[in-house]
Amino acid sequence: MEKRTRPSQPVTTTQTSFEVFELIKERDGLTLSELDAELDLAKSTLHRHLATLEDLGYLVRDDDTYRVGLWFLDLGFSAMRQNELYQVGKDLAENLAEQTEHTVWLSAEQNGLAVHIHKAVGGNPFQNFANVGKRRLLHPLAGGKAILAFLPEERVRSIVDRHGLPARTENTITDEAELFEMIERTRERGYSVQFGEAIVGLNGVGAPIRLEGEVVGAIAIAGAANRIPRAKIHDELAEQVLAIANEIEVNLRYS
Amino acid sequence: MEKRTRPSQPVTTTQTSFEVFELIKERDGLTLSELDAELDLAKSTLHRHLATLEDLGYLVRDDDTYRVGLWFLDLGFSAMRQNELYQVGKDLAENLAEQTEHTVWLSAEQNGLAVHIHKAVGGNPFQNFANVGKRRLLHPLAGGKAILAFLPEERVRSIVDRHGLPARTENTITDEAELFEMIERTRERGYSVQFGEAIVGLNGVGAPIRLEGEVVGAIAIAGAANRIPRAKIHDELAEQVLAIANEIEVNLRYS
Repeated sequence: MEKRTRPSQPVTTTQTSFEVFELIKERDGLTLSELDAELDLAKSTLHRHLATLEDLGYLVRDDDTYRVGLWFLDLGFSAMRQNELYQVGKDLAENLAEQTEHTVWLSAEQNGLAVHIHKAVGGNPFQNFANVGKRRLLHPLAGGKAILAFLPEERVRSIVDRHGLPARTENTITDEAELFEMIERTRERGYSVQFGEAIVGLNGVGAPIRLEGEVVGAIAIAGAANRIPRAKIHDELAEQVLAIANEIEVNLRYS
Repeated sequence: MEKRTRPSQPVTTTQTSFEVFELIKERDGLTLSELDAELDLAKSTLHRHLATLEDLGYLVRDDDTYRVGLWFLDLGFSAMRQNELYQVGKDLAENLAEQTEHTVWLSAEQNGLAVHIHKAVGGNPFQNFANVGKRRLLHPLAGGKAILAFLPEERVRSIVDRHGLPARTENTITDEAELFEMIERTRERGYSVQFGEAIVGLNGVGAPIRLEGEVVGAIAIAGAANRIPRAKIHDELAEQVLAIANEIEVNLRYS
């Protein structure tokens, strides 16, 4: 992973276009007047953007509502299909879900966020898309904490600079010193834990996945606190997560 | 669906950015010098684009190779989740696959192309992503032909203007007059058929899915010619495809 530097002369028009896409996505579609009210753009500029994005095929208009287009699936799926962690890790994540009967998440790190690339639900034969593809802050997630713990310190600092440490629940780590303490404990132990830090009542345990010494993602088990209490995580699940992470790493090296 | 008009003053920088994404996607990743050779851009402009796209999070660099980022999954999946045809049609497509033991495709039409939003494989419990999310030309596909047949004539002409009628096999319709003959026959019959027009040896049958008189997509069965020969399509599968399309339409109206 190259060190990320802010572009000195960004192409601002493209930045604006993605601001439009992200906003429309966030709000499940917006009308022209809603977009006009939310964005700090001249009306003519907004019009030119919307007309161009629609013409490109990535924005669709449904009566008066602008929506993100399905064409993005093509870009997203091709990124996923090319992702080695997805190729190698998908079936092993399914194995872990079957073995533990818990939900297993396989996540990649890209640009400082976790992207869930596979969700395996033990005993559920149909792929459930819920939350697959979502970008998530790293610090509240078990998988995300495993990733942070094994990234170089300067990358962690630049991720915190960019995305901050916002609270998701009252248990989320929001303090940088505390984050680095967590990182130290996680490194010593080899696996990460989270107790109600992303969602109240949801616990998790995660392990990093490394290739050539660099973290490329994580695998994590998450479940209701009564089904995966602290003791079970440390005594049982941590070992299972670590074993699968290791198996994925070996497969990545030989793929 | 609003009538599509080319933007009079497009935001060309955004067009360039998408040209970069599409090219990188098409080629499964490209290096800086490959991009420089392929794109008609000044080196400094290319540099500014790449730096901005990487900073936005949608482009990733893997050693020297630029790849489309996983962040696109978030935009793509949210478009899919919000798509009513996907919500309503997914399970019914699964039913049809189970009932016929053939592969069933659910496709939406967006900006003149078919986007496959669900693939149901009878008897195969795991979701197979292959080709899901791909954008495809309408005219070689059974589902695509069903869509074309029930779109207003002026939309068909503008789609042909934009995307042309390129051949996929020697059976593909490449002539506009022939396309309109197919449209007439398909309208009379109510369902579309294709025999080796997308891929040699692959036959298909499709039905349009309409909401408030407008085509929003199609459902189609596709399979090897020996498994779904002409007679079976007309005598048996057409009726089954039409029944499911009708069921999806009813559900769309009441969703």
